[in-house]
Amino acid sequence: MARDSEDTKRRIFDAATVEFADRGVAGARIDRIAATARANKQLIYAYFGSKRELFEEVVSTHVCRYVEEVPFDADRLPEYAGAAFDYFTKHPEIAHLGSWHALEPEEAEHRIPAIEQAIRTRTRLVARAQRAGRVDGSIAAEELLALVNTFARTWAVATPERSLLRGSGARSIARRRAAVVEAARRLVAPKL
Amino acid sequence: MARDSEDTKRRIFDAATVEFADRGVAGARIDRIAATARANKQLIYAYFGSKRELFEEVVSTHVCRYVEEVPFDADRLPEYAGAAFDYFTKHPEIAHLGSWHALEPEEAEHRIPAIEQAIRTRTRLVARAQRAGRVDGSIAAEELLALVNTFARTWAVATPERSLLRGSGARSIARRRAAVVEAARRLVAPKL
Repeated sequence: MARDSEDTKRRIFDAATVEFADRGVAGARIDRIAATARANKQLIYAYFGSKRELFEEVVSTHVCRYVEEVPFDADRLPEYAGAAFDYFTKHPEIAHLGSWHALEPEEAEHRIPAIEQAIRTRTRLVARAQRAGRVDGSIAAEELLALVNTFARTWAVATPERSLLRGSGARSIARRRAAVVEAARRLVAPKL
Repeated sequence: MARDSEDTKRRIFDAATVEFADRGVAGARIDRIAATARANKQLIYAYFGSKRELFEEVVSTHVCRYVEEVPFDADRLPEYAGAAFDYFTKHPEIAHLGSWHALEPEEAEHRIPAIEQAIRTRTRLVARAQRAGRVDGSIAAEELLALVNTFARTWAVATPERSLLRGSGARSIARRRAAVVEAARRLVAPKL
């Protein structure tokens, strides 16, 4: 029984990830998540609460996975940027979840603790590396972190004009990855 | 009469800009645009066609305004990045329109000619400045342009955790602007 309920929860979670990544919070439908997950709609509410709570659970879990799978090292921001680029290239739906969270107006009221925590910790680590002279201090820590994270996602959530311009073949991806790593390297290099 | 119809069109356009910036294409309602614009719903269809066509008209017009008001100069990318930052700080709704266009799945089918045109022209200008040695060539022209444009919008469409962390006061904006200009400067500087 416990095994079955874990399976069901996982199916709901996976279906909710796809539904929210495609349609955001306002556009997502619990009916559709239930159908995709082959789960009872009432069971979704029982396990996860409201649609809003389900979204928050989905985002928080993906933030934690990201933090675990893309280790952050303030002394190696170019390598981090490359690994983040790889992660979002492989999982564009995770970048999409973050974009909905940034874009939908109701989201302004809903800060997600896992994201706040990651930003605070990483900003502190970057600032420390800057004080120790291992990272250039020309760009303040919080802004430096925001820029590096932003460019790692540049092509994971891109307008169709940009993503279709030169396709999504292996050469395009390699060129984009090189650009992201080089850009991060330039941002942390000793003052020019 | 012509004057009245121009006024009505402008009110519809302004109301549509707000509605699409807040809710995207799928979430936008022509009823709401009509109410805000104090215009007849049928008149909106007569002037602009479908909701999708209205969105495209709104985005294209804003792209043309942006191109005019934020002059692009491949030899002065840091200054361009600063001006673009200022524009999106003053008009976050324009950055939001672009994000919806990148995010909504149906958008993949709809390339907007004004955007394609701007990307093609600017990529060519950056490549030329690189060949002439006025812009460093370590990052390919298309990727360099994408990164600079991305930075300029980093805080105009930010998750609530990031935008609330240190508020939106004049000091935060100045620090972010300085970061964007310095980042662009570093991306175009002669190879380190």
